[in-house]
Amino acid sequence: MITSPDNDKLKTIRKLQQKRWRTKLGLFSAEGEDLVGPDPEYILRAGVDVEPDLLDAVSTLGSGTRVISVYKQRWAEPGGDFLVYLHGVEDPGNVGTIIRSAHALADATVVLGPGTADPYSPKAVRASMGSIFARPPARATLDQLAGQKVALDVTAERELRDLDVTRPLVLVLGSERGNLPGGVEGVRIPVHADSLNVAMAATVALYEVANRMAADG
Amino acid sequence: MITSPDNDKLKTIRKLQQKRWRTKLGLFSAEGEDLVGPDPEYILRAGVDVEPDLLDAVSTLGSGTRVISVYKQRWAEPGGDFLVYLHGVEDPGNVGTIIRSAHALADATVVLGPGTADPYSPKAVRASMGSIFARPPARATLDQLAGQKVALDVTAERELRDLDVTRPLVLVLGSERGNLPGGVEGVRIPVHADSLNVAMAATVALYEVANRMAADG
Repeated sequence: MITSPDNDKLKTIRKLQQKRWRTKLGLFSAEGEDLVGPDPEYILRAGVDVEPDLLDAVSTLGSGTRVISVYKQRWAEPGGDFLVYLHGVEDPGNVGTIIRSAHALADATVVLGPGTADPYSPKAVRASMGSIFARPPARATLDQLAGQKVALDVTAERELRDLDVTRPLVLVLGSERGNLPGGVEGVRIPVHADSLNVAMAATVALYEVANRMAADG
Repeated sequence: MITSPDNDKLKTIRKLQQKRWRTKLGLFSAEGEDLVGPDPEYILRAGVDVEPDLLDAVSTLGSGTRVISVYKQRWAEPGGDFLVYLHGVEDPGNVGTIIRSAHALADATVVLGPGTADPYSPKAVRASMGSIFARPPARATLDQLAGQKVALDVTAERELRDLDVTRPLVLVLGSERGNLPGGVEGVRIPVHADSLNVAMAATVALYEVANRMAADG
């Protein structure tokens, strides 16, 4: 049982709150009993492996935690019939939610373009609800991806439901500020409010495209 | 300019963090420049109406705030072609997100059934992104609502896309724990992960039903 805050595993967990250290060590941490994934480097359970107060002290949750586990970062190759490309999505909660939606609704891999938040940050890992383990993200530029490229764009004329879906398809999602890469066909989701946030818009588009692909057989 | 923490407006804002006081006073507060709605009871701007430190002290955001405004709670009558009924949705962030999605995707009113979080809590108001002003929620029991009632249910056989949409339609959403009221037809969203959270599932269903109604004309 760990009883010192100077323990190396605790020190590593604290470092992993910073992107610089996550990148350097190639590791990430996950908090909570619902977020224990396969092949951990190690798991620390409050009262079993470590004193509860010491675990709470390295938690990123205000309420403390019962379990923290540490893993090697995994990166997928971008492939398959359906990819989601993120362009400058800066909010880690949105990145994690989109990884979850892409997995749940379309079994699709999320590809991180430039300016996108680290998917292995504690907030993104939590928002992914475990999908970060099932569908690790990929890294690429948009030019490196083959297939039909379609961007969600509130200013587009064409509606999402009028999109002709071909394979492979790359769904391009822009930043919270609305920037999109140039030269990509746009579609919009009709809305009554002034906008949808990027994670909600992504969820709708993932459902629509996956549904259309399933109907095509 | 308010310079005392004992100011009545500041004391009221602090009280409005508690449901008991929100209900008693029939008021709620909204934080942030993006969340200023119509007809406020009052607005407090940091450095204009109140000393910035005093405003930060009554903020529910860790980072502090530039503006807090206070409003009368408004409750709609449940009506229209499309209603969303919440049954035991306990997370205020999910309630706010569903109010946002219902407004943005379907211009639909959200009806709060028993055991559902207060839509006027600070967290729900923030998650609604202003839709709480545009589409105030209603209160009713499911029996009081007329129309076709359809519940999102991961155990249902029928898929959402095979649903026959008639009007008025009541979309029933259960708690995070999966409880649903009895005697309601269920449909499911096909998923590759073990589940979707209730706000994401709601967003997909709102899009699908609104889209279907729009196509019917």
